[in-house]
Amino acid sequence: MIYLDNAASSWPKPAGVTEAMVRVMNECGANPGRGSHQMAVQASRILFETRRKAARLFGVHNPNDISFTLNTTMALNIAIQGFVREGDHVLCTGIEHNSVRRPLEMLKRNRRVQITYVQTDSTGQIRLEDVEKVIQKNTTLIVCSHSSNLLGTILPVDKIAAIAKKHGIRLLVDAAQTAGCCSIDVEGMGIDMLAFPGHKALLGPQGTGGLYIHPDIELNPLLYGGTGGDSENIDQPHIRPDRLEAGTQNTPGIAGLGAGIDYVLQETVDKIYEKEWMLTQFLMDGLQGINGIQIIGPKMGEAKTGIVTFRMHGASSSEIAFMLDRNYQIAVRSGFHCTPLAHEAAGTKDTGAVRASFGCFNTKEDAQALVDAMKEIRHHFVK
Amino acid sequence: MIYLDNAASSWPKPAGVTEAMVRVMNECGANPGRGSHQMAVQASRILFETRRKAARLFGVHNPNDISFTLNTTMALNIAIQGFVREGDHVLCTGIEHNSVRRPLEMLKRNRRVQITYVQTDSTGQIRLEDVEKVIQKNTTLIVCSHSSNLLGTILPVDKIAAIAKKHGIRLLVDAAQTAGCCSIDVEGMGIDMLAFPGHKALLGPQGTGGLYIHPDIELNPLLYGGTGGDSENIDQPHIRPDRLEAGTQNTPGIAGLGAGIDYVLQETVDKIYEKEWMLTQFLMDGLQGINGIQIIGPKMGEAKTGIVTFRMHGASSSEIAFMLDRNYQIAVRSGFHCTPLAHEAAGTKDTGAVRASFGCFNTKEDAQALVDAMKEIRHHFVK
Repeated sequence: MIYLDNAASSWPKPAGVTEAMVRVMNECGANPGRGSHQMAVQASRILFETRRKAARLFGVHNPNDISFTLNTTMALNIAIQGFVREGDHVLCTGIEHNSVRRPLEMLKRNRRVQITYVQTDSTGQIRLEDVEKVIQKNTTLIVCSHSSNLLGTILPVDKIAAIAKKHGIRLLVDAAQTAGCCSIDVEGMGIDMLAFPGHKALLGPQGTGGLYIHPDIELNPLLYGGTGGDSENIDQPHIRPDRLEAGTQNTPGIAGLGAGIDYVLQETVDKIYEKEWMLTQFLMDGLQGINGIQIIGPKMGEAKTGIVTFRMHGASSSEIAFMLDRNYQIAVRSGFHCTPLAHEAAGTKDTGAVRASFGCFNTKEDAQALVDAMKEIRHHFVK
Repeated sequence: MIYLDNAASSWPKPAGVTEAMVRVMNECGANPGRGSHQMAVQASRILFETRRKAARLFGVHNPNDISFTLNTTMALNIAIQGFVREGDHVLCTGIEHNSVRRPLEMLKRNRRVQITYVQTDSTGQIRLEDVEKVIQKNTTLIVCSHSSNLLGTILPVDKIAAIAKKHGIRLLVDAAQTAGCCSIDVEGMGIDMLAFPGHKALLGPQGTGGLYIHPDIELNPLLYGGTGGDSENIDQPHIRPDRLEAGTQNTPGIAGLGAGIDYVLQETVDKIYEKEWMLTQFLMDGLQGINGIQIIGPKMGEAKTGIVTFRMHGASSSEIAFMLDRNYQIAVRSGFHCTPLAHEAAGTKDTGAVRASFGCFNTKEDAQALVDAMKEIRHHFVK
């Protein structure tokens, strides 16, 4: 199997990831924060170690400003539902994933929140002046994908952060596609909240993710429950990270995530970015020579994550994905990728698109295999 | 290490649990429901298989009525926050965990919800007439622990379900302490919603849990986001289990949970219950002969889960737990166990209590080791 669906979930993982999970399962089954015996203390330490690694990777001063979550969606919901109040106005971009759009649309219905979607061009890029001109007096939050999960386009979050700061607005960045493969420095870039997945470019297992929150932001929790401490308080404790981590955490998963981040820290994000970018350029170069194929998103030479999205004249994206899978053992993703907004921007709302996405273990041979397969497949559709 | 903290998290796990997780990590890294390629389909199948096993264990007709969650706390929050409306009255027992009490208290503040805590006796047992007499016209939900996490007391949820049904009220059961070690048949017992952990008596890894919801109950989701399908809908899709499973699920964890449930189904819940009950009786018998020790909760011979809770005259629960851990390598839990309510009922609000909790792999020797240790420890405190 040639796995080109890393934007959905990265695979394979570095060897240390599964090993770390197995170690927890075998040696450290206790509940972190619940109990003071050695195994419980060891479990707490595992959570803290991963928190510290994530903090180092993202330029976070205090690891306790990072809370773990089941996935990015949960992190985004904690941030959005916990921050936005009745009557607020929220800006977001026209390429947001449903994990941003749907919680916002829910708040529009239930808390009379106003939303403005700032449209992008067809490559998914935003114009800064379009952001600034729709700010209102009641704008409290900008939510921005660091990179489009459909197109790979990288948005200038540092410049958006500067606009937000100027207007006293907070910035939530969805790093689903960038954490681990694009440089992120929350303090340097001015990001107030960062939602990230554990199982994509951070190379951890599914079931992990997290949310960084600036120390001066206090969110209403989404989950209420036990945290192992302050049991007699009928409200959720304010102490971080406990406030947003009610219930038993995914200790084996978070141990695996720690090993994934270790790998990223050692390889360095810059090298991983460069490698994946080179693969996108190689693939785009190969695909654009094939009659009937249209590449969507940033042009060659432009910055992007490891995503190449395309469609073929006369074929549905699902037909192509099906043929790639069945006949060539190449895994890509087709359809709408939970982001109808971005499809509108890209003009692929009716056809969907095929997305090939690289991880740090892919090779030129993988990209070449896709090019070769598409050369054959196009004969089925393009006469 | 003699591990007697299974009520916090079970350990060790059956061998198949870690193996199932490793298999997913090595062979099936794709994102379930995102993509139609073989690996994504295989990941979806893993989720469905575990869903089917959980359905079989709990007497659920349609596996899709079970949604997976990060933990029991998340399941309880989805149920409570998704069901209770402004102005509703909710009944719960006086032994509820903070994962029930805190979301309810939040709704009291934010949605003007009324709560009645039905007090139990000092063993944690409830009287049915006390439940019925506090029902109001606006009572919509009863939330009830199947078993106290502090005392092991088993509550008559089937009889409470009958009362609920008679009054047109829904019943949510917190099975944190019983799923996998006490017989549960949601349809037979009349349970409308069942929140359960994966990492306790179901023997799965931490980071897993679930919520069964009766087919005619429609909850407002807690998390909004992508589900892999119905992408163009701006609202959360109504289809189950997708509606309550936004974002990427914990595929390795859920695979491990499936292997844990396999073990439970094979051993049978009744045999596991009986084994753990025998261990509690053996331990209680040993402890009650020690001068200065007071056992809390159900008396010998009464039904209970694998929990034995006690305190010692003149010693704090944390001192005892510390000595057991450091000098005897015995892991128990001390303190308040996230349930100050139950401590009030038991009269241990000021002292806390030591909880020893058995899992299906504990032995009489483990129990005897605790008795022997306590015989020595008591000399430090009881003159």
